[in-house]
Amino acid sequence: MQIAKVRGTVVSTQKEPNLGGVKFLLVQLLDEEGSPLPVYEVAADKVGAGVGEWVLISRGSGSRNVEGHRDRPIDASVVAIIDTVTVDNQRLYDKGTQW
Amino acid sequence: MQIAKVRGTVVSTQKEPNLGGVKFLLVQLLDEEGSPLPVYEVAADKVGAGVGEWVLISRGSGSRNVEGHRDRPIDASVVAIIDTVTVDNQRLYDKGTQW
Amino acid sequence: MQIAKVRGTVVSTQKEPNLGGVKFLLVQLLDEEGSPLPVYEVAADKVGAGVGEWVLISRGSGSRNVEGHRDRPIDASVVAIIDTVTVDNQRLYDKGTQW
Amino acid sequence: MQIAKVRGTVVSTQKEPNLGGVKFLLVQLLDEEGSPLPVYEVAADKVGAGVGEWVLISRGSGSRNVEGHRDRPIDASVVAIIDTVTVDNQRLYDKGTQW
Amino acid sequence: MQIAKVRGTVVSTQKEPNLGGVKFLLVQLLDEEGSPLPVYEVAADKVGAGVGEWVLISRGSGSRNVEGHRDRPIDASVVAIIDTVTVDNQRLYDKGTQW
Repeated sequence: MQIAKVRGTVVSTQKEPNLGGVKFLLVQLLDEEGSPLPVYEVAADKVGAGVGEWVLISRGSGSRNVEGHRDRPIDASVVAIIDTVTVDNQRLYDKGTQW
Repeated sequence: MQIAKVRGTVVSTQKEPNLGGVKFLLVQLLDEEGSPLPVYEVAADKVGAGVGEWVLISRGSGSRNVEGHRDRPIDASVVAIIDTVTVDNQRLYDKGTQW
Repeated sequence: MQIAKVRGTVVSTQKEPNLGGVKFLLVQLLDEEGSPLPVYEVAADKVGAGVGEWVLISRGSGSRNVEGHRDRPIDASVVAIIDTVTVDNQRLYDKGTQW
Repeated sequence: MQIAKVRGTVVSTQKEPNLGGVKFLLVQLLDEEGSPLPVYEVAADKVGAGVGEWVLISRGSGSRNVEGHRDRPIDASVVAIIDTVTVDNQRLYDKGTQW
Repeated sequence: MQIAKVRGTVVSTQKEPNLGGVKFLLVQLLDEEGSPLPVYEVAADKVGAGVGEWVLISRGSGSRNVEGHRDRPIDASVVAIIDTVTVDNQRLYDKGTQW
């Protein structure tokens, strides 16, 4: 999985029928220091992440191991809202302290 | 998924039999500012996207979760025509205003 | 899928038993202007592509959605010989005019 | 698989229900000389790897071929703690000598 | 598939139970001129490749289409020992002449 920050949304009316009701978030991937990478994903979201939050992104077939998404044509999902990231025994991110 | 702009078409007569009737679009991937990336895909299209439109591209096994495409040898599909993209609370793209 | 140009062949005698009878082509990926990318694939071929021809390459699990290849340990296939590529309303490639 | 070094942990409370009980490690990928690559993964861990250890990372659908993880939305797992890496007949890493 | 050269081995005792008995080779990927790329894989091997030999590497789900490996958490396999590689009608590699 990759760490990413929620930046926005993508909306579509004309689409594959089995994408109906899926919420798409635009998330920016972060490196292991918490800095933005030049890589984004448009990821399906069912955990209810909000703009600015750090999330875990799962890509590929694993992104569809989410209830109701198994047969959808998606390749990226928000699977968790991150509470804390600890690297080299230091706290890189703590949701509670409003990074 | 990735955001892409439709730029053209690819046509083939001599191909795997189970690719019959599939329409292939050449799409250019865009970054999170809407600028073209040096990456393209030849993607199967069933949503009817036209040249110049912004679309969502699904890649890998998810690209075949489209009716009639499950057993085809494809690895990328246009799964949605984008209406709007919003990043950092600003409208990056709005189909209605003819970007 | 990606556009590629056939450049050669790879031959092997000592291999996984279920690769028996598979023909392997070395193909060079092309960018959306038709220039070679620094990326190649060794792709299984059943459509009968020849050196110099432009082809469509499917990678990953989709590459095995080809009759007789579903259980083989391959991750890339030639799935079509390209007739024409049109980008921004201009003909980038036409097999008939011997690019 | 890729060689990586365990650097930390990622903790989440609000997540997909079928991620419950999964331990996530942040691992830094290493190149074939043992130097860190600018690539990390947040990988599920069931082998009990600790910070500083070298591990093998499996990505994609293979990462879920681990007991209890088959239906989870994960795309990377720690599948082994490395004892030794030998390259060009030289020992690059030996867990016993505390690299 | 990608062309690679066998450079070494990776050994592990503490690992996922279903990795028992799998031999792991460290292979360096080669470009289409035969020069090493800055990319390696730790690949499962059942064909018996030796250090210095050129091999074909299959990655992703295809790497598990090998007898006895279908349910293992691996994402790369050596699937063939290469005899010859021919590019632009020239012999790039011939195992018989001890490249």
